[in-house]
Amino acid sequence: MSSHRLPEVVSRLSKIEGHVRGIKKMAEDGRSCEELLLQISAIKSAITNVGRVILEDYLEDCVVDGIRKQSDRETVERMKKALEKFI
Amino acid sequence: MSSHRLPEVVSRLSKIEGHVRGIKKMAEDGRSCEELLLQISAIKSAITNVGRVILEDYLEDCVVDGIRKQSDRETVERMKKALEKFI
Repeated sequence: MSSHRLPEVVSRLSKIEGHVRGIKKMAEDGRSCEELLLQISAIKSAITNVGRVILEDYLEDCVVDGIRKQSDRETVERMKKALEKFI
Repeated sequence: MSSHRLPEVVSRLSKIEGHVRGIKKMAEDGRSCEELLLQISAIKSAITNVGRVILEDYLEDCVVDGIRKQSDRETVERMKKALEKFI
């Protein structure tokens, strides 16, 4: 991915990693299913958000570049595949 | 949550934690958006699955218990709230 969105992606992934570790600790400490589900749900949103940032980066970087280079069809197909992987 | 599903939940969360760390390393190593999205998508499924295990545990444990104790309405409302948090 491009270097200008990289620090944001790495920072979001570090936070998610810490959050997952925190939930594991909560489970081991015997916290309720309701508390755990709320945290799991927050992680799910955070994962979706980091995926969106990567997709945006892909769009800004590879898609613009591909279309400028006249590889319209191939570029659109690659973007579709990227969307498929994620959504 | 109940103790009999706890080892599974902790083990799944440990794997997710390691996976997130791995994706962070991939991003830092300059891997493509497409590769990162595929991994992000796998994490999203893993998070959904661990949430499902916690919901199942909630159902087997708290819901059965609540209905046995005649607290039908309250139990159903709590299960609905747990589903709402997650889905």
